[in-house]
Amino acid sequence: MTRDSSCTVAIVGATGAAGPELLHLLQARRFTLAALRLFASARSAGRTLDFGGRSYPVEEAKPGVFADIDLAFFAAGGPTTRALAPDAVRAGCLVIDKSSAFRMDPAAPLVIPEINPQALRQHRGIVASPNCSTAVALMALWPLHQRFGLKRFVAATYQSVSGSGVRGVSELEEQVRAYAADRPAPDPAVYTHPIAFNVIPQVDSFGPEGYTGEETKMEQESRKVMGLPGLRVSVTCVRVPVLRAHSAAINAEFERPVNLAEARAAIAAFPGAELVDDPARRLYPTPLDFSRRVKCGVGRIRIDTALDNGLALWVSGDNLWKGAALNAVQIAELMLREGLLKSKAAFAGV
Amino acid sequence: MTRDSSCTVAIVGATGAAGPELLHLLQARRFTLAALRLFASARSAGRTLDFGGRSYPVEEAKPGVFADIDLAFFAAGGPTTRALAPDAVRAGCLVIDKSSAFRMDPAAPLVIPEINPQALRQHRGIVASPNCSTAVALMALWPLHQRFGLKRFVAATYQSVSGSGVRGVSELEEQVRAYAADRPAPDPAVYTHPIAFNVIPQVDSFGPEGYTGEETKMEQESRKVMGLPGLRVSVTCVRVPVLRAHSAAINAEFERPVNLAEARAAIAAFPGAELVDDPARRLYPTPLDFSRRVKCGVGRIRIDTALDNGLALWVSGDNLWKGAALNAVQIAELMLREGLLKSKAAFAGV
Repeated sequence: MTRDSSCTVAIVGATGAAGPELLHLLQARRFTLAALRLFASARSAGRTLDFGGRSYPVEEAKPGVFADIDLAFFAAGGPTTRALAPDAVRAGCLVIDKSSAFRMDPAAPLVIPEINPQALRQHRGIVASPNCSTAVALMALWPLHQRFGLKRFVAATYQSVSGSGVRGVSELEEQVRAYAADRPAPDPAVYTHPIAFNVIPQVDSFGPEGYTGEETKMEQESRKVMGLPGLRVSVTCVRVPVLRAHSAAINAEFERPVNLAEARAAIAAFPGAELVDDPARRLYPTPLDFSRRVKCGVGRIRIDTALDNGLALWVSGDNLWKGAALNAVQIAELMLREGLLKSKAAFAGV
Repeated sequence: MTRDSSCTVAIVGATGAAGPELLHLLQARRFTLAALRLFASARSAGRTLDFGGRSYPVEEAKPGVFADIDLAFFAAGGPTTRALAPDAVRAGCLVIDKSSAFRMDPAAPLVIPEINPQALRQHRGIVASPNCSTAVALMALWPLHQRFGLKRFVAATYQSVSGSGVRGVSELEEQVRAYAADRPAPDPAVYTHPIAFNVIPQVDSFGPEGYTGEETKMEQESRKVMGLPGLRVSVTCVRVPVLRAHSAAINAEFERPVNLAEARAAIAAFPGAELVDDPARRLYPTPLDFSRRVKCGVGRIRIDTALDNGLALWVSGDNLWKGAALNAVQIAELMLREGLLKSKAAFAGV
């Protein structure tokens, strides 16, 4: 494919939380597509969604539908993805997957275009997009790693309910409305605890070492995306009553001595980050300010008083954009530009 | 004074956020007092407050009012406290102060009764109670320090709006009500940014090194309370849309090898903490669960994957209780029991 060619694009999981974001971004970024197909579960099939002033039917996602499709954005859960992505690859369709299904598969590149675009050349039909918190955190850590050499980091996240999909957003809104109306809130369903006026130190289920899946993802995916297999990472992932955009407080230790001027310059020069760091004017990123923003905001950069060669910092970024749909679209844009959409090699796992 | 004696008690700042908590705790804990006097700014003087079924007038806090008072709980801001506390001490009144005015003064013990009760013997009229986040975090860190020897810690806080007083609570509630009614929220006044559906990585004002006052307090006060002058601490303090109780994600490095069984046993045996740590049953502390609780909840204890001899953990505790009023009352109870209320030595700073 050449720079100007267009392709037939599918979205699998079009009616979920990331589906509308993908449609919005494809249109806003003038993604060149010849045709668009929308897929979801049988339950959602038959609905229609708008794209570019036209109405598109939502079809049932099932084996056999990928024959005429060049590129499929998978915005579905792990089970659906594991069931359908291999079928898509066999049909010659490139899969860009936001789920965790293939992220740690050695045969699937895990890519953030600003960090490891070269990994795309090894794709065998499936490219994975990282976990939302990982993508946001690395927009701060990668430029600092390039300057100072990242050795380890500790992070605590502040994750919005949209990370749990449409149902997470509804649950927070219902609890808040109940509070405002002075009536009892309905029992929590998405979360184990109320989320309005609360914070919940659990995102995803617990593994045997006491870390949650989300925390382990940040550890493993950070290593894979940055190509740092020995990187030491410890994260506490926490759900907060925010609708959109994830934040993280990060303490990072580096191989080489750090200084604030170079750290700020590195962030400011990095395409994925916006430096918002002026304490005197009370300027730093917040999730409200960094919802629906292409770049992630980085601020509160200071010399870490606990770690050697350490920096403490804060990052906020849109979990549905850089943490999901935007990163997937950026991967597609880059692959189209570089002529990487079609690959002769089949995905090893297929 | 002997164990059974009672005394004349004053509350300075009775109409602020901590005032009602002090009144509630003095009554609930059957604090033996001979008389009670309530003070606040001239603006609030003339109001009345209930205590034990009786109505008490609020008097103006000003020099000269402390002549007949044995013990004054100061629950006022720094300027009021600096202006009035020395006068109280000169009048022979013991001051237990929740403000930051005297915490780092070498002449004032900074005390958490479960940690450094012995420091009370050196008092010269003023005893300081620590910052709310510090008190909550140390309920987890002190028992672990005793077992393993604390070397350094990193923390990220999740602080409720009641830490900003009654106005902080009102601001969050107004913004939430506006959202539920689908009308624009009033401009933020207490915080620089909206707090509903947002998190704000700033608590207190910024110092020259980029740390906020709250962050520096946690560093300095942790050292003083635990008697660890070389302790390395780096904190990010964050305001979250929670009404009451502060939480913190903590990563701590120790001198000696750690293990989870001993860590959990140390927390469970510590009077200031309640172990809530059963991931399989999704049990861990949350601020909603630890509002109006005497103990602070500690959970999510796991081996830290980034630090050597490290533990990662989570703590939630009531900022108005252990973080302020309860700790002050516990100091008073202990001083009464130990006969430490009166001291011949005058406060050095007076």
